[in-house]
Amino acid sequence: MGSAVARRLVTAGCTVLTNLDGRSDATRERACAAGMQDVPLPELAARAEWVLSILPPSEAYNFAQSYREAHATAAKPSTGRVAFADCNAVNPQTVKTIAGLFSGTAISFVDAGIIGGPPKDGYDPVFYASVDPADAGVLDDFVGLSKYGLRISPLRGEGAGIGDASALKMSYAGITKGMTGICTAMILAAHSSSPATAEALLHELYDSQRPTLQRITRAVPDMLPKAYRWIGEMEEISAFVGGGEGSIHHGIAKLYERIERSMGEEGDGEDVKVLKDFVQDAKKLIEKNQK
Amino acid sequence: MGSAVARRLVTAGCTVLTNLDGRSDATRERACAAGMQDVPLPELAARAEWVLSILPPSEAYNFAQSYREAHATAAKPSTGRVAFADCNAVNPQTVKTIAGLFSGTAISFVDAGIIGGPPKDGYDPVFYASVDPADAGVLDDFVGLSKYGLRISPLRGEGAGIGDASALKMSYAGITKGMTGICTAMILAAHSSSPATAEALLHELYDSQRPTLQRITRAVPDMLPKAYRWIGEMEEISAFVGGGEGSIHHGIAKLYERIERSMGEEGDGEDVKVLKDFVQDAKKLIEKNQK
Repeated sequence: MGSAVARRLVTAGCTVLTNLDGRSDATRERACAAGMQDVPLPELAARAEWVLSILPPSEAYNFAQSYREAHATAAKPSTGRVAFADCNAVNPQTVKTIAGLFSGTAISFVDAGIIGGPPKDGYDPVFYASVDPADAGVLDDFVGLSKYGLRISPLRGEGAGIGDASALKMSYAGITKGMTGICTAMILAAHSSSPATAEALLHELYDSQRPTLQRITRAVPDMLPKAYRWIGEMEEISAFVGGGEGSIHHGIAKLYERIERSMGEEGDGEDVKVLKDFVQDAKKLIEKNQK
Repeated sequence: MGSAVARRLVTAGCTVLTNLDGRSDATRERACAAGMQDVPLPELAARAEWVLSILPPSEAYNFAQSYREAHATAAKPSTGRVAFADCNAVNPQTVKTIAGLFSGTAISFVDAGIIGGPPKDGYDPVFYASVDPADAGVLDDFVGLSKYGLRISPLRGEGAGIGDASALKMSYAGITKGMTGICTAMILAAHSSSPATAEALLHELYDSQRPTLQRITRAVPDMLPKAYRWIGEMEEISAFVGGGEGSIHHGIAKLYERIERSMGEEGDGEDVKVLKDFVQDAKKLIEKNQK
């Protein structure tokens, strides 16, 4: 996601800095191909007018803290508005903690949540954004980044503030990745009872829940290679939902861990095979009856 | 469900017995209207050729045990085939325990799972059924009940046995009632962040997940009055799935408990109002853009 967003901005004429200390060669190659400049963090802190944090959720807080420290001691502090937008799939409580790092500094804070896949030709995900009402101007400035090719949607309604863009991202992903997780868990459970049970499930879904079966044929194959990345996000959603219902997405995180194991080189691939076979049979059934 | 199935059988000319000891007047009236005869359990055990157990899941085991005892001591044991079909939403392990009650007796056992709503004019749910391969004949006999207006689908495939019809029912309900639970949990979580967050969720679902939003407009209002009945079923599904993923449906059971509290006379109705408003706004948005 980060490199695709950077490419959009570079294409629009922006200078995009990044700091790749300790990152892999693959990440460096991707960053270079996207037109980003790898600079030390103090230089980034001194030069950048906008910081867009796009990282695995577990790294969001540490990066914000490192940036704030680098900015505080930067040799030549940047002039004019400096703003930090956390665009990560972290829960609203985490984003409020991150926002707290910047209170009392000259750095404005934007809570952003990206809904959709990486930007590509003809497609852009939406950056939802919310801010502290006491610093409302930064939301207009963030929306102003639209002119560089980003699709930005501000949350301005009743009671909106820091945490809401992240809550929206969690709610949306909780539905989409949650529904895929539930379907996956139940296909595996049916098959573990007997192959005949999974086959009957397929036919009953075809008869009485066809849109759900069609969704399965797209969403399950799309999920398999991404499951390992979704584990942390599901745990964030679990913390966001809280209460007894919080265990829904904790269970889905466990399911995605199971998929990651089955996908891995050490795994037996059995779960993945069951899911791929189910999807293939579903597609055949749908195609056969469309003719 | 029980009274609607009985009405189908009575209409087809069957004698349908029931035992209503300790049940409410409302239940008695419903049973009477459906054409059932209320008889003491020993008489039922002596006369019935088929027993269809259709109960809240928590009562399934106790009823099976009471029936077996009544049958063992019945004054005039019935002649010919006697069979007991457990049609309840219990997990496969529970149904295997219930089946065990009848091993070594003259009573055949059918594991049945009903998918769909109560029978009504022009509509019938499906009774999926599986049996011990050593007593395969009873599956044909159960399918024979089709002539009395029931829609019956036997599970005969690879490895099918007792537990599979219940596993199928759990898998199907785990998907349908599970997806509704996830959507409900996330709408409530979004709204608890701010009303603006829930509104943005609605619009984002409209833009990028329209079939899911359409499903919400039907499934959430349908769920509200039934949530209290689904709690036990979600716990059965949780036990069926097991492992770390088992907590998915445990969390959904907790959500349905929350809905039951909000629906109740002691509840403040706030959650129900949030959900109804969301559904109403979704319908308006869909209708407006269809014009």
